[in-house]
Amino acid sequence: MSKLCVRSFAISVDGYGAGPGQDLQNPLGVRGTEIMEWFFETRAWRKMHGQEGGETGVDNTIAEQAFEGIGAWILGRNMFGPVRGPWPDESWRGWWGDEPPYHTPVFVLTHYPRAPLRMAGGTEFRFVTGGPVDALEQARAAAGGCDVRLGGGVASIRQYLEAGLVDELHLAMRPVLLGSGEHLLHDLDLRSRGYECTKSVAGERATHLFLRRRR
Amino acid sequence: MSKLCVRSFAISVDGYGAGPGQDLQNPLGVRGTEIMEWFFETRAWRKMHGQEGGETGVDNTIAEQAFEGIGAWILGRNMFGPVRGPWPDESWRGWWGDEPPYHTPVFVLTHYPRAPLRMAGGTEFRFVTGGPVDALEQARAAAGGCDVRLGGGVASIRQYLEAGLVDELHLAMRPVLLGSGEHLLHDLDLRSRGYECTKSVAGERATHLFLRRRR
Repeated sequence: MSKLCVRSFAISVDGYGAGPGQDLQNPLGVRGTEIMEWFFETRAWRKMHGQEGGETGVDNTIAEQAFEGIGAWILGRNMFGPVRGPWPDESWRGWWGDEPPYHTPVFVLTHYPRAPLRMAGGTEFRFVTGGPVDALEQARAAAGGCDVRLGGGVASIRQYLEAGLVDELHLAMRPVLLGSGEHLLHDLDLRSRGYECTKSVAGERATHLFLRRRR
Repeated sequence: MSKLCVRSFAISVDGYGAGPGQDLQNPLGVRGTEIMEWFFETRAWRKMHGQEGGETGVDNTIAEQAFEGIGAWILGRNMFGPVRGPWPDESWRGWWGDEPPYHTPVFVLTHYPRAPLRMAGGTEFRFVTGGPVDALEQARAAAGGCDVRLGGGVASIRQYLEAGLVDELHLAMRPVLLGSGEHLLHDLDLRSRGYECTKSVAGERATHLFLRRRR
């Protein structure tokens, strides 16, 4: 069966996956972009944004691998956008412009129904109101044997971890302190849930930690 | 003024500095030794225990540096031993045998008075009942201009962090999950307390994170 994978998910050394106070100006919360600074320099990031160049070291290699073999994505509502409550209209189309970097079906967890949204480059946002398990089933069906990547945010990853549904996590730990915000692992005992850390790889700007659930 | 430094303090990737349930058989709590496994292979560790050999790579270099320029240590009561409550007698003399690896005065935080304990090799355990600030003042006076190293455990480091008294922290993060135990930084907003992460160094078996309080 295709795996559910978290990849290239950035955290601070104190374990935060987002800063506090997400809004339109701060998609990752206040100061949250600091944990992403390993990614901005890579060729992978620049290619995602239609640009040439970028670094091609360890961080880039791992970031590029994180996109391989993915047939569908799952995103939490807040990772899709800052809109809360029922969708007021169809105007919010994600943070990523006309051509988002997913190029697959993307299942957005929400309590409020909305028609699918087809974007340029093969991304189609599909809004799932049936909860995380339903979203995963739909994503697996759409992925056609490839893996499903759970993009975030923190609350969604925690939901799937609590349910024991995440097979692999790759966390990119930036050497910065956020101090507050959304903590990825607080009070989630991953060890008793069967996870182990299988590898730590030093990149140029992040330490890449690979966790896996024993089967 | 001499600095108060935490050095070579081991944590897991999920942020635990000790496992649960410390006792005589488990000085670092259940499974707590897993976070120390970067240290056991080093020449520094072997030398501490009167043995020859050991690895001399990055982990060792940093572990050796952690002992340099230290004129006194502070330890929490639980790091000194598993005895709780009033000292029943003088029989507990630390985890480290006749010649502990400190070779300086060591100020042990305790609520219960006890006479100083002079060990082989220059270590003298002095039991301080006046609290962390008093212990730090005594340690600074004894350090003769050198720095004071705060050895742990987690509860003691958190006390000093909360009081804003730690100048530098070097954490050795092992790529293991403990899942439970004593979390070093939970709900301690180090950023708002003025700390920053200045450096991350990949060792053979740990990632070394250097934090500092801005002055």
